[in-house]
Amino acid sequence: MHWMVQASRAVTYEVAIVEDVLCPEDPTLARAGAEPGSPARRYVVVDSAVAELHGSRIERYFAHQQVRIGVCVLDVSEEVKSVETALRILRALERFGIDRRREPILAIGGGVLCDIVGLVASLYRRSTPYVRVPTTLIGLVDAGVGVKTGVNFDGHKNRLGTYHPAACSLLDRSFLATLDRRHISNGLAEILKLALIKDRYLFDLLECHGARLRDEKLQAATTGGEDVARQVLARAVDGMLEELEPNLWEHQLERRVDYGHSFSPAIEMRALPELLHGEAVSIDMALTTMIGRSRGLVDGRDADRVLSVMRQLGLPVWHPVCEEGLLRAALAETVRHRGGAQRLPLPVGIGGACFVNDLSERELVAACAELRSLAGIG
Amino acid sequence: MHWMVQASRAVTYEVAIVEDVLCPEDPTLARAGAEPGSPARRYVVVDSAVAELHGSRIERYFAHQQVRIGVCVLDVSEEVKSVETALRILRALERFGIDRRREPILAIGGGVLCDIVGLVASLYRRSTPYVRVPTTLIGLVDAGVGVKTGVNFDGHKNRLGTYHPAACSLLDRSFLATLDRRHISNGLAEILKLALIKDRYLFDLLECHGARLRDEKLQAATTGGEDVARQVLARAVDGMLEELEPNLWEHQLERRVDYGHSFSPAIEMRALPELLHGEAVSIDMALTTMIGRSRGLVDGRDADRVLSVMRQLGLPVWHPVCEEGLLRAALAETVRHRGGAQRLPLPVGIGGACFVNDLSERELVAACAELRSLAGIG
Repeated sequence: MHWMVQASRAVTYEVAIVEDVLCPEDPTLARAGAEPGSPARRYVVVDSAVAELHGSRIERYFAHQQVRIGVCVLDVSEEVKSVETALRILRALERFGIDRRREPILAIGGGVLCDIVGLVASLYRRSTPYVRVPTTLIGLVDAGVGVKTGVNFDGHKNRLGTYHPAACSLLDRSFLATLDRRHISNGLAEILKLALIKDRYLFDLLECHGARLRDEKLQAATTGGEDVARQVLARAVDGMLEELEPNLWEHQLERRVDYGHSFSPAIEMRALPELLHGEAVSIDMALTTMIGRSRGLVDGRDADRVLSVMRQLGLPVWHPVCEEGLLRAALAETVRHRGGAQRLPLPVGIGGACFVNDLSERELVAACAELRSLAGIG
Repeated sequence: MHWMVQASRAVTYEVAIVEDVLCPEDPTLARAGAEPGSPARRYVVVDSAVAELHGSRIERYFAHQQVRIGVCVLDVSEEVKSVETALRILRALERFGIDRRREPILAIGGGVLCDIVGLVASLYRRSTPYVRVPTTLIGLVDAGVGVKTGVNFDGHKNRLGTYHPAACSLLDRSFLATLDRRHISNGLAEILKLALIKDRYLFDLLECHGARLRDEKLQAATTGGEDVARQVLARAVDGMLEELEPNLWEHQLERRVDYGHSFSPAIEMRALPELLHGEAVSIDMALTTMIGRSRGLVDGRDADRVLSVMRQLGLPVWHPVCEEGLLRAALAETVRHRGGAQRLPLPVGIGGACFVNDLSERELVAACAELRSLAGIG
């Protein structure tokens, strides 16, 4: 005998740009991800830096909204993005005790924290709802809006994880005001990625206003700055969701948003803790821009513009770990991760992308050498 | 600004009753869960008892099929159904190295092993395909055919897990020949559950042939026995899938297949390692049969028949851990797990079920006392 079980799982989640999410009178956060009548209890996982800056506002907020909270403060970095950290949260969550469906876990912090809490939420009772409040730029435009969760494992980036969208992501730009400039650059790298593969107008915005966006931390320091910041954030989120929505579970392994993510996982993990995620992505994009140029996909002038915008955004285009052996290993691992083919996104001019499966080692090594000399390393 | 992301994930998986799955000439297992042209490499997780009995057959099988295998032999029990065990497999899997989509992990073993490997497969690279070959009766009719994966955590049964169906489950009854009778009874408990909630004819089969099925271990010892064994297995799998398919991700929390699983998680974990899963389920069903009888849902004669079939199948109807405190705590935990309501499946006669939300502690305690005295404990 023989059965084919067939089912279809509908997934809906909300992403909203909000203002002043911790304003005590605004019930948005307190109600997010829960049906009316759900218990007013929440388990909140907060980044330690955020807790230091906004901890008392968070407490005041939930007190005003009459929500009883349990809090887990987490000192987060790529190095503690581990199963052990996830288990620590899970144990604390178990002690607090939550209902399976009606008491969403809240994640308030950067991309790494959102990724870990997403994994926790997907594992606890075989999935509980959760709500994300990203507080970094990379969280706002990348980790906070997709469905991927994960932790590093055995030296590999995000090797363990799930697909589990937050019920709701609330994007509040005001958290960026207290971020250091390096972390603004970190997020700008993912915005630049979207610009390069699909949005030439977004690239133009970054080229004209990148340095100012970084210096003003996407806040309303100047009238023009406010308008540009709004536009850049909205276009980045919109572009990202447009790419993700038809391919949430990555059935299609040719993903334009994988641009900058072919060599960067290995670069980032090897350089740990020296490079932030976006910095490794920037180096990957610089490298593939060189490959694109040598293939005639990007002309010299555009390639120069791309590298120049990276520098303007405070992003690196090179790191000493980028030697041949590492890049070869990175490519082999990427092939394994993309189901046996390179499926390598390459830039086409500025704002376009294609996929190739025939990158040779010689090409890779040549691009790497060229980038090294461009970066002034010789 | 505001976005609603909407997507639908189609899931298809296969469950097949097969014969002699390790016959070297039969390519079914070697090809299961993989597209033609996929690499001929598999990582196989095998229960240590199965490895001892069938290890050389497994090796011969894959050698004949020209599939290179990596093997992880696991000494499995409810007590090592833990995150640590899952991580141990994941580390070994990482060393073997598998392609993300084309080299399904194989699980050959009982329900506990299938649950752990399912979790491993769902976490590795955010989900890899896997294939189940259950070797116990509970694996054949329960853990091996659904989509739930999991491990115990912090003293709670299956507290961490995911929904991740195997690409394919191959059900081969011949493995049962080497199982001890207690583990046959363990699986018969889940078959009895299906009989009680939805299949009176299956109950009749168990009532007439239960002892023989158990003694013959569902093998073709006698002509009649073979026919009954086939029928019982097919009806159990069919009934189970009929319940699961429309509610794979448990959006509906009133699940008839939760019958026997309201109090048993706490009973099983408290009595560990004394009770097997199916034994705890049997005690739960005996208890809820008493509740059903006191509510007039099951008449005295049917209640007696149910308890008598349990005894005939070698299943317990009582265990000393069933004291008031534990049952109260079990009910509270079940309410939390079922989204804030009891949603307690109760039997209606034999072959029917209903859900109640108003079980009182007094009722629970009375049913427990009655069962204790019926069990001859006084």
